Amino acid sequence: MTRLVVVGADAAGMSAASQARRGLGPDELEIVAFERGHFTSYSACGIPYWIGGLVESRDDLVARAPEVFRDEYRIDVRLRHEVTAIDLDRREVVARDLEGGGEVREHFDQLVYAAGAVPVDPPWAETSAAGVFGVQTLDDGSALRAWLDGAPRPRRAVVVGGGYIGVEMAEALIRRGLSVTLVERGPQPMSTVDPDMAVLVRDALVGLGIDVRTGVSVTGLTARDGRVASVVTDAGDLPADVVVLGLGVRPNTALARRAGLPVGPTGGIRVDLRMRVMGVDGVWAAGDCVQTVHRLTGQAVHLPLGTHANKQGRVAGINIGGGYATFPGVIGTAVTKVCELEVARTGLRERDATAAGYEFVTVKVESTNRAGYFPGADPMTVKLLAERRSGLLLGAQIVGRSEAAKRIDPLAVALWNQMTVEEMTGLDLGYAPPYAPVWDPVLIAARKAVEALSRG
Amino acid sequence: MTRLVVVGADAAGMSAASQARRGLGPDELEIVAFERGHFTSYSACGIPYWIGGLVESRDDLVARAPEVFRDEYRIDVRLRHEVTAIDLDRREVVARDLEGGGEVREHFDQLVYAAGAVPVDPPWAETSAAGVFGVQTLDDGSALRAWLDGAPRPRRAVVVGGGYIGVEMAEALIRRGLSVTLVERGPQPMSTVDPDMAVLVRDALVGLGIDVRTGVSVTGLTARDGRVASVVTDAGDLPADVVVLGLGVRPNTALARRAGLPVGPTGGIRVDLRMRVMGVDGVWAAGDCVQTVHRLTGQAVHLPLGTHANKQGRVAGINIGGGYATFPGVIGTAVTKVCELEVARTGLRERDATAAGYEFVTVKVESTNRAGYFPGADPMTVKLLAERRSGLLLGAQIVGRSEAAKRIDPLAVALWNQMTVEEMTGLDLGYAPPYAPVWDPVLIAARKAVEALSRG
Repeated sequence: MTRLVVVGADAAGMSAASQARRGLGPDELEIVAFERGHFTSYSACGIPYWIGGLVESRDDLVARAPEVFRDEYRIDVRLRHEVTAIDLDRREVVARDLEGGGEVREHFDQLVYAAGAVPVDPPWAETSAAGVFGVQTLDDGSALRAWLDGAPRPRRAVVVGGGYIGVEMAEALIRRGLSVTLVERGPQPMSTVDPDMAVLVRDALVGLGIDVRTGVSVTGLTARDGRVASVVTDAGDLPADVVVLGLGVRPNTALARRAGLPVGPTGGIRVDLRMRVMGVDGVWAAGDCVQTVHRLTGQAVHLPLGTHANKQGRVAGINIGGGYATFPGVIGTAVTKVCELEVARTGLRERDATAAGYEFVTVKVESTNRAGYFPGADPMTVKLLAERRSGLLLGAQIVGRSEAAKRIDPLAVALWNQMTVEEMTGLDLGYAPPYAPVWDPVLIAARKAVEALSRG
Repeated sequence: MTRLVVVGADAAGMSAASQARRGLGPDELEIVAFERGHFTSYSACGIPYWIGGLVESRDDLVARAPEVFRDEYRIDVRLRHEVTAIDLDRREVVARDLEGGGEVREHFDQLVYAAGAVPVDPPWAETSAAGVFGVQTLDDGSALRAWLDGAPRPRRAVVVGGGYIGVEMAEALIRRGLSVTLVERGPQPMSTVDPDMAVLVRDALVGLGIDVRTGVSVTGLTARDGRVASVVTDAGDLPADVVVLGLGVRPNTALARRAGLPVGPTGGIRVDLRMRVMGVDGVWAAGDCVQTVHRLTGQAVHLPLGTHANKQGRVAGINIGGGYATFPGVIGTAVTKVCELEVARTGLRERDATAAGYEFVTVKVESTNRAGYFPGADPMTVKLLAERRSGLLLGAQIVGRSEAAKRIDPLAVALWNQMTVEEMTGLDLGYAPPYAPVWDPVLIAARKAVEALSRG
């Protein structure tokens, strides 16, 4: 009987556990999963939509309840248990029971480290004032919802950080009727796309009534009667009854470091293609706590995203279960909805491509998601980066109003397969008036890129 | 000064002409384009939506009017001129002026043959009775609209043929308030997808109130007072005040054959990679009149579709203009809207794969277009075919209710790049709750295909 212990029972950990179970039955493999929080396998990406009221119930976000794992997968899930130590020599983990108290020790033959990520909290965010929230876990989300529904009812929200979570949360809070200020240190919110695309996002946020403050750094918080009162910035104070932190996350590796697991330059755990922790026998890692390889630059990156966590967990689980699978790396595809805009990207932004050493041309085309004459045709903007000389697609970004975001997928697959923009002009994509102009926006962009390359 | 004559001024012909103009200015290249009909460069695919009233004006379907070509591209467009002969030895075309009468002769150095396709009309359709229409050209569409708006107002429509055009026209006519019967000889309408997917389309048509008769062959028409009265079938007569023929098209090559241009096994003109007519110097062909290569089978196919016509015309035009471009063939991607369903396909259906000599596994998965908990999540069905042993993707089909059809594009690009379903499981596709479950339906299908392959 082999014993598998899983540290962290969210997407990556439970994908690994359930996939391992598919490979090895209960007579061959015993599985114990420790989870600090109250939930298993939930959609952290869905939290802003639950806060905003688009998704009605918190339970909707839970993909699989602990009972399902226990009953169907025969996984011994222990919620509210925080793993405090991993002893690689004795092959043991130590976990604290956060509710019952006390400590348990569990032997393992195989270990999956899937502790996820923790919010980047600047020193000023360490406050005893109530009303300051991250939205990293479903427990975080629950606390925020309770605060928003509590008395006195918060009216003014400040969201710090203009990335995906910050922007989604700003929209969620304005949907709930709060007045919302979004503070971003950089020149534009949504710096996951190039500034010339991000400006479209900014316009949409402003159009929704969100007060967007860019180039502004937060330096502190003030409190009154134990509740947050304002956010202090280098451009003045912003009154706030609730503060949401969207400053990004970093790999949760404190425990891993103490155990001696190798951590890479991104702060994520170093794993091989099979999601085995580098140089440590029988120990695997997956999800937001690991670093992975960007297929275009060959560099290590930390890209915490549910879709990668699930894939990586599955790969680890297949390997633990006696099969063979590898995780092939990422190319930085991401989509998001911002107000009435759809924003998508894959591959490298201009700054990434430059940093990686590429020379490239960029093109940007305005087209429509349907034939221009078809009812409901909405504008969409497609931007491409292509390497000089080779013409290889390096990156793509899309901003549109409807049926636009997932248009990034064919571009992602083209990029994955190292297509040149010249090759892309011949692609056989779906055409019918309700779905695309006769020249698909993706193909128009590829044609323009070919022309730009020919001009040097 | 080189002289280019274009036969047929629709998508392929005018793409070629305008692209050639971009390569060579008016001092280097003279361009004359003959068109039998009243329009240039219109969206034939949009005709059903104009008939159905979704698109308001016929002019909306015209991408570029003749004046634009004349003024901006310096192309001498001659509408209502039917080319009646091509003399390759004397490098001359003969055209009849359908309105003014008389005949003109034009010398050419380069010729683009882009005469499009003609409807497959069975002998029974050759009738002098009024009220029987194809919908191949915008002139056809105009005649049908006039009939539908005329007196006595038609009430009962029979559409013959259950392919794309037939299904789209059946929907357009029921939208206009007619009672509609759709007659299809085969076991299912929409045989462009496998029967297990086509049955979903049939259900949608029936749900819309269309009387779908499958396994029924039409043998004749009856008329009363010069107007069509019924469609005679091997399963009885179907009363009809208007009959729409959607029996597909064949390459329009009568003129080409007389001139000695080579025609392939599909009935389409044989061209090389650069869209040069095989073995005929200075003569090019593009669009619905040519055959092309299916990249998966290596076989010649005739796939009349606006998107191919535009690409082929562009390739021909680049080459005529002194550049270099090739058309890489097709993989059979197609999308359509049927009532509230979106239907998409790429690559080979089961029957195609079998005919080509492949052994394969098939999988079909039910998923949703958005995260299951996100408002507006709609079901979608994805079917994949993968080659035994190699695991190469051979074909994909999707039926869904919204935001489903264009999900075929990443599959088309994967197929284009000869990906295996195993490789596809790692693809970095866009994920966010408003746009996809954390496991994109495409990836779920790829995983299932891997499992099916491992079972042999």
